[in-house]
Formats: sequence, structure tokens, C-alpha cells
Amino acid sequence: MYGEKDAARGDAATFLWLTEEFGELASALRSGTHEELAAEMADVLAWLATLANIRGVELEAAVLRKYGRACPGCQAVPCVCDPAEKP
Amino acid sequence: MYGEKDAARGDAATFLWLTEEFGELASALRSGTHEELAAEMADVLAWLATLANIRGVELEAAVLRKYGRACPGCQAVPCVCDPAEKP
Repeated sequence: MYGEKDAARGDAATFLWLTEEFGELASALRSGTHEELAAEMADVLAWLATLANIRGVELEAAVLRKYGRACPGCQAVPCVCDPAEKP
Repeated sequence: MYGEKDAARGDAATFLWLTEEFGELASALRSGTHEELAAEMADVLAWLATLANIRGVELEAAVLRKYGRACPGCQAVPCVCDPAEKP
């Protein structure tokens, strides 16, 4: 639905939009309604997907590759990494 | 796979992790390999999904609600909003 405009905008300008939505997510997290929070999360995901499209990344495949089997840190399900460590 | 640790961490601390990954995405966008970029995008999505779980938001449903039919701005597919406007 946004293909041509996305390609014309490019990745850096798209990251700027994503960042703006990221800020709005912080606001909604702090003081938004449940509906507003859900909408801001949708916006962040939509702009992330746009960025992935522009750079030729298959977003779903990338998630499955990294997180599809088990925790990439400890290789266990559920994760048994030290809580102070990432993730 | 991370349910208990996520609930214990809470939303603000989870947003902090998400923000760290967001910075890593910016780095990968600028100078990462295609694989590194894909992995950073996966990390951002994974932390966004974690945050959604913690706050009880159905992420996929939220995206479909906002973007499932057409552009929420102009109601058209493809979008015909002014390119200077969001999105």
C-alpha cells in the first residue's frame, strides 16, 4: 500500500519516521490508554516492516532465524540466562 | 520462552532494552552487513513483542486493526496521502 512512496523516501528518512513513532510509544507507555498504546505499537511495527522492505530484509524470517528455536543466549526454553544479562 | 523474566522486569525496564536494540538497529542500518541488519531488526521486533505481552497488547491484532484495510490516513490502497505528510 505504500511501496512507491517508501522506496522514494529511502532508509534514513524512514528511520526518522520510525524514531518519531518510537517516541510516541514511550509517551503512550507512560500515560496512554490501552487503545493508544496498541496503536503506537502497531505504528512502530509498521515502520519497522517498511524499513525492512526498503532494505530487502524478510522480517518474519529474521525473527524465526534468531528466536525460532530457543533463547539465542542460553539455547534453552524457557530462557535460563542470568536476569542481569541480555535478553 | 521469556515469560517469567519479562513479567519480573516490567515495562519501563523492557523499554530500556528495546531502546538499546533500537540504537543497534541504527548502527546496522548505517554500516552493518545484511545479516547483521536482519538480526537487529529481529531484536527490535522481539523486544516490541515482549513489551506488548507485558502490557497485554495483541500486537498482530493491533496492526491489522490500524493497517489491515487501507492507509489509515487517506483510506486508499495504494496510499495517496501527500508524501510530506505522515505516513
